[in-house]
Amino acid sequence: MNFNIQPVSQDWLQRALEYQRTLTKPPGSLGFLEEVGCRLAAIQQTLHPRLGKGAVVICAADHGVAAEGVSAYPAEVTAQMVQNFWAGGAAINQIARAAEALVWVVDVGVRAPLPEGERSLTRVRSGSGNIRLEPAMTLSEARRAIRVGAETAREAIAGGATLLAAGDMGIGNTTAAAALTAALLGLEAEAVTGRGTGVDDARYKHKLEVVRAALSRAQAHLGELKEADPLALLAELGGLEIAAIAGVFLAGAEAGLPLVTDGFPVTAGALLACRIEPGVRDYLFAGHRSVEPGHTRQLEALGLRPILELDLRLGEGTGAVLSFPVLRAAAAVMAGMATFAQAGVSQAEKP
Amino acid sequence: MNFNIQPVSQDWLQRALEYQRTLTKPPGSLGFLEEVGCRLAAIQQTLHPRLGKGAVVICAADHGVAAEGVSAYPAEVTAQMVQNFWAGGAAINQIARAAEALVWVVDVGVRAPLPEGERSLTRVRSGSGNIRLEPAMTLSEARRAIRVGAETAREAIAGGATLLAAGDMGIGNTTAAAALTAALLGLEAEAVTGRGTGVDDARYKHKLEVVRAALSRAQAHLGELKEADPLALLAELGGLEIAAIAGVFLAGAEAGLPLVTDGFPVTAGALLACRIEPGVRDYLFAGHRSVEPGHTRQLEALGLRPILELDLRLGEGTGAVLSFPVLRAAAAVMAGMATFAQAGVSQAEKP
Repeated sequence: MNFNIQPVSQDWLQRALEYQRTLTKPPGSLGFLEEVGCRLAAIQQTLHPRLGKGAVVICAADHGVAAEGVSAYPAEVTAQMVQNFWAGGAAINQIARAAEALVWVVDVGVRAPLPEGERSLTRVRSGSGNIRLEPAMTLSEARRAIRVGAETAREAIAGGATLLAAGDMGIGNTTAAAALTAALLGLEAEAVTGRGTGVDDARYKHKLEVVRAALSRAQAHLGELKEADPLALLAELGGLEIAAIAGVFLAGAEAGLPLVTDGFPVTAGALLACRIEPGVRDYLFAGHRSVEPGHTRQLEALGLRPILELDLRLGEGTGAVLSFPVLRAAAAVMAGMATFAQAGVSQAEKP
Repeated sequence: MNFNIQPVSQDWLQRALEYQRTLTKPPGSLGFLEEVGCRLAAIQQTLHPRLGKGAVVICAADHGVAAEGVSAYPAEVTAQMVQNFWAGGAAINQIARAAEALVWVVDVGVRAPLPEGERSLTRVRSGSGNIRLEPAMTLSEARRAIRVGAETAREAIAGGATLLAAGDMGIGNTTAAAALTAALLGLEAEAVTGRGTGVDDARYKHKLEVVRAALSRAQAHLGELKEADPLALLAELGGLEIAAIAGVFLAGAEAGLPLVTDGFPVTAGALLACRIEPGVRDYLFAGHRSVEPGHTRQLEALGLRPILELDLRLGEGTGAVLSFPVLRAAAAVMAGMATFAQAGVSQAEKP
């Protein structure tokens, strides 16, 4: 894992904050949009940031732990939804079209056969192990899955993306994300386990037990989980798409692009990427806050305020891509607004 | 005031809610976006709503009450900002360009001279009266100001707008909006008076006293304010741009368009429009929640959940237009997503 990530310029951030105060609006009156704009300016090292085409890389994989009955949906849905993405029929396809973003779908570990094509070369293995009973994958598979995500991100960037999000598809992946998040942040299973796509009380209780069992199993292998190597935690508890998502963010930060997180599984990948390379953090924007309780814990750990709070819990990158226009507007305000001096507008009176 | 507003079809709303459940995503997983999409479907009477170009009508006027020192900015800024809008240098110009919306600026009551042009024909009077001491305008002026907003909205719709927002510009207008909102909703001045563009403690205390005095004065004329005629309240306590904003929403609802509210002064205009014609309510979407405390009271009264919560307090329609892409995405999801049957995706297992 070798990613060369440049720190975001604190000098440009400071210059951007000062420049915001000269624009024709009361200081601070664009609220969080101003902070977003200044961070984009610092990432692009300009007072006039611009965002063009966006891209979302949807990483898809199956989870052995789905056999435990932790999801409301059968595992075959992962492969069916990959085909729905390819056919353009999923929510993310519509949202991406509306937000001028290209959709990249990468099968990094789907279990079922998919129609042949270049994409299947990216499959590292057909579904992860059942983390209740065994590691999700080997360390070597974890590294390969990260590389698959990184390579796809580089293709998207070569294709013109100026703004990059990751999306997830994998029945059972909120269980893996919960286990990995608990391990990375040193939290109990209760704090990070939610209802995913919508399980009932009995299934939720079972899901919680599965996360606890997975954490105990991993702890027996690795010792204190919070101190463990992030790749080892990924291999024990994660998922192939979560690994690939980390790769998307690592390669995106290496390319110096603003990066946008989606919901719980994607933000697990972002946490992992930051544990591997802390420099990733300063390129991250939180597209939205999902209803999964563990997502709020992740955002707190990353110190990110979500742009949208629409009670989404779909994944696929939907919440990330929905926030693209707000990011573009934050950049456009800095790029195009007149200053008080330019427009001949009077400033606030001194009290 | 004669606006012919058709009720939004409850039958189409019900059909839209049922159709959402057939789309390839867990039921409810797009959260608030689903409700927005269904309401758009009902307004357009289709299961496949589409939103194209948007428009924001910025209504500008001065306020006699600005002489009381209720704003951090001198009153001349209203006219300066109108010219900034025309020149394309304001925040709303950048945000509107990013959100594919046209900006219409209407001088309904600016005090200072502005460069000649067709626009100046829309000025009803040069600034309102100081509501602490006198009515803001006559009933006849109130009606004319509403018509100016309505006419501009109709022009924007004739120009191809499929989605309509109102914006405001007027130094001192959060004072007028506070007085009018308190009167319309039967609230105390404290509940609806905020810091506007950012006044300090001393000026805030003074602003509160001015709102109280204006309410007492109006009550002496009209009796119990909550029971008073909305046009009479507008004439006593409102502002010319607030009147025009009500006209934008009345004409927009008459044309059957989805309408988007911005912050505190614009939502005062929306409240007023709903008091004049209750049918307006079902066409309204709340673009955002501003930091003005009275804005939350207005949204509660209208029963609207804000799409964005970004701590904006700028006005100009910025928060409304920032939400346009989310509205478009909500429509696009319904218009373009595959159903479970179409995509061959398995539904949730019965527990």
